[in-house]
Amino acid sequence: MGRLRGLTVMNETAPLLAERAGPERTSALMRLLVSCADRPGIVAAVSRFLFDAGANIVRSDQYSSDPSGGAFFLRMEFTLETEDRAGFPERFGLSVAERFDMTWRLWDTTQPKRIAVLVSRSDHCLTDLLWRRQRGEIEGDIVLVGSNHADSRAEAEAYGVPYHHVPVEKDRKPEAEAALLEILDGRCDLVVLARYMQVLSGDFLERVGVPVINIHHSFLPAFAGAGPHERAKERGVKLIGATAHYVTEELDAGPIIEQDVVRVSHRDDVAALVRQGADIERAVLTRAVQWHCQDRVLRHGNTTVVF
Amino acid sequence: MGRLRGLTVMNETAPLLAERAGPERTSALMRLLVSCADRPGIVAAVSRFLFDAGANIVRSDQYSSDPSGGAFFLRMEFTLETEDRAGFPERFGLSVAERFDMTWRLWDTTQPKRIAVLVSRSDHCLTDLLWRRQRGEIEGDIVLVGSNHADSRAEAEAYGVPYHHVPVEKDRKPEAEAALLEILDGRCDLVVLARYMQVLSGDFLERVGVPVINIHHSFLPAFAGAGPHERAKERGVKLIGATAHYVTEELDAGPIIEQDVVRVSHRDDVAALVRQGADIERAVLTRAVQWHCQDRVLRHGNTTVVF
Amino acid sequence: MGRLRGLTVMNETAPLLAERAGPERTSALMRLLVSCADRPGIVAAVSRFLFDAGANIVRSDQYSSDPSGGAFFLRMEFTLETEDRAGFPERFGLSVAERFDMTWRLWDTTQPKRIAVLVSRSDHCLTDLLWRRQRGEIEGDIVLVGSNHADSRAEAEAYGVPYHHVPVEKDRKPEAEAALLEILDGRCDLVVLARYMQVLSGDFLERVGVPVINIHHSFLPAFAGAGPHERAKERGVKLIGATAHYVTEELDAGPIIEQDVVRVSHRDDVAALVRQGADIERAVLTRAVQWHCQDRVLRHGNTTVVF
Amino acid sequence: MGRLRGLTVMNETAPLLAERAGPERTSALMRLLVSCADRPGIVAAVSRFLFDAGANIVRSDQYSSDPSGGAFFLRMEFTLETEDRAGFPERFGLSVAERFDMTWRLWDTTQPKRIAVLVSRSDHCLTDLLWRRQRGEIEGDIVLVGSNHADSRAEAEAYGVPYHHVPVEKDRKPEAEAALLEILDGRCDLVVLARYMQVLSGDFLERVGVPVINIHHSFLPAFAGAGPHERAKERGVKLIGATAHYVTEELDAGPIIEQDVVRVSHRDDVAALVRQGADIERAVLTRAVQWHCQDRVLRHGNTTVVF
Repeated sequence: MGRLRGLTVMNETAPLLAERAGPERTSALMRLLVSCADRPGIVAAVSRFLFDAGANIVRSDQYSSDPSGGAFFLRMEFTLETEDRAGFPERFGLSVAERFDMTWRLWDTTQPKRIAVLVSRSDHCLTDLLWRRQRGEIEGDIVLVGSNHADSRAEAEAYGVPYHHVPVEKDRKPEAEAALLEILDGRCDLVVLARYMQVLSGDFLERVGVPVINIHHSFLPAFAGAGPHERAKERGVKLIGATAHYVTEELDAGPIIEQDVVRVSHRDDVAALVRQGADIERAVLTRAVQWHCQDRVLRHGNTTVVF
Repeated sequence: MGRLRGLTVMNETAPLLAERAGPERTSALMRLLVSCADRPGIVAAVSRFLFDAGANIVRSDQYSSDPSGGAFFLRMEFTLETEDRAGFPERFGLSVAERFDMTWRLWDTTQPKRIAVLVSRSDHCLTDLLWRRQRGEIEGDIVLVGSNHADSRAEAEAYGVPYHHVPVEKDRKPEAEAALLEILDGRCDLVVLARYMQVLSGDFLERVGVPVINIHHSFLPAFAGAGPHERAKERGVKLIGATAHYVTEELDAGPIIEQDVVRVSHRDDVAALVRQGADIERAVLTRAVQWHCQDRVLRHGNTTVVF
Repeated sequence: MGRLRGLTVMNETAPLLAERAGPERTSALMRLLVSCADRPGIVAAVSRFLFDAGANIVRSDQYSSDPSGGAFFLRMEFTLETEDRAGFPERFGLSVAERFDMTWRLWDTTQPKRIAVLVSRSDHCLTDLLWRRQRGEIEGDIVLVGSNHADSRAEAEAYGVPYHHVPVEKDRKPEAEAALLEILDGRCDLVVLARYMQVLSGDFLERVGVPVINIHHSFLPAFAGAGPHERAKERGVKLIGATAHYVTEELDAGPIIEQDVVRVSHRDDVAALVRQGADIERAVLTRAVQWHCQDRVLRHGNTTVVF
Repeated sequence: MGRLRGLTVMNETAPLLAERAGPERTSALMRLLVSCADRPGIVAAVSRFLFDAGANIVRSDQYSSDPSGGAFFLRMEFTLETEDRAGFPERFGLSVAERFDMTWRLWDTTQPKRIAVLVSRSDHCLTDLLWRRQRGEIEGDIVLVGSNHADSRAEAEAYGVPYHHVPVEKDRKPEAEAALLEILDGRCDLVVLARYMQVLSGDFLERVGVPVINIHHSFLPAFAGAGPHERAKERGVKLIGATAHYVTEELDAGPIIEQDVVRVSHRDDVAALVRQGADIERAVLTRAVQWHCQDRVLRHGNTTVVF
């Protein structure tokens, strides 16, 4: 599989269609994500390949960071009959992807992404995810919850989701990360930090092998560090917000997926800021997770393309 | 040029590229809008044609109203060298559009759309359009202002735009519409009703031959008819809004292009509602005009696809 | 208790402080709501009374619909020591309220409002209310859930809230309303229609004797009647919203408490509109219920003053 | 005039009512702003004084930062007959303000605030202010424009506003500030930095003697320093915003008056971010100036109370 410097399609470590094929189906909705250096003929080549393969494109989004010499991003949603699927990924790789030196990925939507949620004490984001999953409002399965606290066990288990308590003792963080990795290993396509208050090491991020999405409070202008709501209150902010982003080794500096704000006033004390911050956090995180599960988010260096 | 029942691409009466070719240029940004019945192979055929014609696609948007049996919409932005442009539209028509029975349109962005603005007494929308045009924030030329009042002459002329005063006398509306049609005839690609308080007849709409965009107030729940701000105030609305839409013969029922709202409270009297309504009206109308000029709005029956 | 034509303070039928006095407390946060014809001296008289009574005003909001001859609205939040509370309401009535012919109401915040929730099949609003009540995010108790269906029994009971199934048989609506009234009688200070799909009769509204809050979808422009999402889709709306209002005998025409919208596009099918509509409905209803429970909403004819 | 540590009512250096009395009027709308340490009886004393003085309160807003031991803020709008105005401020000072050690200010709304606008090259904020002033949408007079560039002279003068070009030469900033101070001295009640790109010294701020409002871009999370739009683009922000604040000696750290955001996407290049940033900047600055002119903004340490 090709790879272009600075471009990464999400989820490359997740299994390909061919490896996950379930029972026979007559037709499936597939998604193809592509990034490569822009040049003429990419759309023609991809769409021609899909047409010849018997696929019907139902949605297509494309973006070039620059008309000349930029990076090219493509997301195509198409239906494919069962009998047309044998060897499909291999043929695409050989006849199209190699020619354009593409980073690419094929997803079968009948295999929803498996989500592991990590949480600490605050459970507002976890609850929202569990509740929406139950209603079928997120295109993904929550397969496990991990936490450095025992607080949310009952809640997770009420939704039928296994709960793993992995305490993080002072000075024994590497051991805790190792335990977490063992739990996550091969079991998920996405890790969601739903107010998980432990900083993950670069080593963990590399070894976990799947994308990690985080939510954090954010303000205009921002207040990094401890006590952000207290400091925002002291400054008289009129908006509080939240930012969902992919986690990179540099703390809170990864590519942004989604942001939103809510209006506050001097009448809101610090507790009210925290409460409204929680509401906007869960709304933003849920949207980011949903878009990721719909394969609508492509990374481009330290930014994102959200189709 | 093909046409599909129920589907209309905007601006079909405007001149085609070939008829408007200006002085020689080395490269131009072009836009192709397509709608037709959905079926496999459309994107492949169009993108292959563009590739063979030497075009480089810089943006592509596609939408299908239904994966099976729905309507298909496509907007492609591409650059094309001067030497590749001779006969381009004709070849596309013959080799692609006919095959799929497409309604289509090709726009050369070096020829900005010519906009005629009709206005009555309130000039907030007109001012915003003139001001943004001067700053190059709208991709279109305002070529004339028409009005049933003389009030805004000085303002239009200060921006170098000709002003036509066409009074509408009681019982002599057909004469006024005929006078307007004469002024507009062949001079514009778009008519914008920027708070023009005269209802236009179906006959006028048919004969003017270019799309007409209107702005009107809107509320949740809506108050049709006279005195909307007074009635909204009596009901205690918390949001007031504006809706920009294409004008059809049925009053205020045409396809919606853009909408937005602003928050109000019991402290806002009717005058404050009107003032804030004016702000949201001009913001929404300007966005609708801009999107139309960028060929981002396709009509689909009584709705729109906004890419 | 005085009453002015056209003005009604919410919750007049709920018990007064003196009747609900619980165990001795050293200090309590109280709220006084007043409406009357505007004239000089009202604020002076009320604040002087509170000062003499030993109260400390912590928040005060006032609104006059018109500086001359308008209606006057006042909400004061103050703390009062236990030993100062004996006879407080009676003295206020005699020495202040009668003089200005006030409609007024005194609330003791240590006695949270008792909320009855009526629901049909869709439980998104009910869930949000139950969940927030459990977290202490609503200043009120949910004391019972009533429904014409059995669907949400498990959910309500999981939160420890009694569930009353009151089927509404065709042609036997009066009997169902009578059964509901018996369940509600004396048990609640507020009825919330959380997607309760039965139209309540004027007779029911009069006999229930407490305010009734409803949530309904709303659009710009509005689509009354059946299938609103389908019709909004056909028109190409770009915003969908929700309106929370007090229920009056005229269907969906009562005073508006809160409204909000969410942005949609042509990519959202009817199911997506319904889902996003549900999200905005529960957000708006929860805010309206919260504001009502905080005694921040005063009715003024068919509109509201929200402090 | 009393003053409480850490509390400052805006505009204390502006002339009092008694000093600005114009021709005889029968009635005027007045505004009283008060801040002091919270304790029982303040509202009673103020409202009693106003009642005895013949005033009719038409709006009153109050806020306590803490029910016990906090800071108290009050804004009262009232009408007062001409014959009742003689000695009014002196009597309020002696009989009420001294007793509670108040910082206070009295404004006569018939004397609109005089605004000086400082601008550099970008004129979007200046244009919006001039345009709204002409329509009577801002409760204040723009009495002069000052700039370190000559660019906006024609625009200011077209609105009948004097333009002062005060170049700021490298290493001669003190001389430029002195020249500015001479122009501003005694001529304005408010200085608005409408994209004025020179940092003002603490000495200037002290000597100018009137509040100074600034507008600056802001992001979630914020990007301080040069090239904010470029860096925001690199991070993939989904919202861009603007913050209006009072200027203090510490750069961009003064009390926030208003903030707002607009949604952007990966399709917006840096130029589009700048353009949309300009739109939100002028909207936010105009609101902040309007609220200040309506005496709705009180400073509380490094935060604000906006009634």
